[in-house]
Amino acid sequence: MSRFDEETRVVPAADGRWAGTVSPAWNIGTNPNGGYLMALAVAAIRQALPAHPDPLSVTVHYLKPGVGGEPFDVDLRVLRTGRQIGTVRATLSQGGEARLEVLAAMGALAEASDAPLVPPPPGMPPPHACVARSAAAQGIDMAILDRVEVRLHPDDGPGGGGGRARGSGGGRVLDGREPDALAALVFADAYPPAVFGLLGAVGWVPTVELTVQVRRRPAPGWMLARFETVDMVDGRLIEDGLLWDSQGHLVAQSRQLALVRGSGPRG
Amino acid sequence: MSRFDEETRVVPAADGRWAGTVSPAWNIGTNPNGGYLMALAVAAIRQALPAHPDPLSVTVHYLKPGVGGEPFDVDLRVLRTGRQIGTVRATLSQGGEARLEVLAAMGALAEASDAPLVPPPPGMPPPHACVARSAAAQGIDMAILDRVEVRLHPDDGPGGGGGRARGSGGGRVLDGREPDALAALVFADAYPPAVFGLLGAVGWVPTVELTVQVRRRPAPGWMLARFETVDMVDGRLIEDGLLWDSQGHLVAQSRQLALVRGSGPRG
Repeated sequence: MSRFDEETRVVPAADGRWAGTVSPAWNIGTNPNGGYLMALAVAAIRQALPAHPDPLSVTVHYLKPGVGGEPFDVDLRVLRTGRQIGTVRATLSQGGEARLEVLAAMGALAEASDAPLVPPPPGMPPPHACVARSAAAQGIDMAILDRVEVRLHPDDGPGGGGGRARGSGGGRVLDGREPDALAALVFADAYPPAVFGLLGAVGWVPTVELTVQVRRRPAPGWMLARFETVDMVDGRLIEDGLLWDSQGHLVAQSRQLALVRGSGPRG
Repeated sequence: MSRFDEETRVVPAADGRWAGTVSPAWNIGTNPNGGYLMALAVAAIRQALPAHPDPLSVTVHYLKPGVGGEPFDVDLRVLRTGRQIGTVRATLSQGGEARLEVLAAMGALAEASDAPLVPPPPGMPPPHACVARSAAAQGIDMAILDRVEVRLHPDDGPGGGGGRARGSGGGRVLDGREPDALAALVFADAYPPAVFGLLGAVGWVPTVELTVQVRRRPAPGWMLARFETVDMVDGRLIEDGLLWDSQGHLVAQSRQLALVRGSGPRG
């Protein structure tokens, strides 16, 4: 069993809730990564809706940071089930305190296939020629980098984006587990904030809300991603993301509302 | 009092809920417009959080169509209040049945101002030289067009988008009421589906989930908008929107997951 599957394992609990443990292995700084926490919630939701195993659209509002190493439970309510889509509301709590509030439309995704309209993935050098995301570069501990490898486009970074707040790169789970819809949720939140690509590491960029639409099951191999912020005002920004699989198929779209703090941990 | 304000009026109900009536004046076909229903839910939420009057990020999952002319109530729960942001979960029901499930981050928006990064609004001829959105063109009753005027870029439409599923235009509330954050929610869902710009009116495009991030208070005047679908697969599409005020300031970003039905009412 891969560590990713082990560390997103959720089991039914006695009171109709779902339970597991937030692994500290997915921390950035002292907080579990937001995409990993989203994957935990969805791991519970998909068990409650076996006919609709895939997250078509998931919105998480982060109410309070998670705590790595501590148990969590997920209280969920199925709001609607149809032939194509099941809708669920869920709350992920630790120590009796709500951490994530989640609203998800679940369904069944097809295998990746070609489609019109889809924007092409970023042109990237091969991963070994890219820059590894590193704790040193961001000045913060990143346990998560023992779980996922994130490679950044060497031309990105301050001054490299032609005046745009962009970042792009490739990611994979380090123990060889191939990507799926759940891993796509993690990759939607595993890159440095795109605004760093314009302004450098401006501080802590905590996510208020993250929505990910998963479009297809990814093919095996690296997943590529591009993120961009087109607006930053009053200390709040929106970051858009697109994720593709190794065959160039669009796998997911993401958007988050985040705050920009002048100081604190970076990421 | 403008009809928009009258028809989004929500009052406290005896049981701690909020109550009002879904006006039939905002129907497209036989269903109230999704953006209007979102505005009703947010009208209740903002009353419950007076220190955080503006929707910074609102996600709605549409569980069941609303019914114009019938009362509604909103049951809400404040999940978190901080200095900058209040987070609320809400359910809008009619006749005891949940219609919308809502998750919102509320705060206080600044007046529109210039900012770097923001994409420019679509170049548009003056509104009188644009094409009015019409019931005839879409083959469906649109009561909503007595409430809002929606003008479409004359170059949009099948064949006009250079192979892209795009639409753009301008909108205003017809009784002279100036736009605000609540009206921006309506304009995020008041245009023909962008996919019509590539393929023509392919059928009914019901919204599963709509998320709108409001970025600034709009200046008075027309609000411009551009919508684009970059992926349609398995009868599901994502539509992205950007909305600007008359001064060219970015007011909102929107994204929706919608289904594509081969037949049925169009819109």
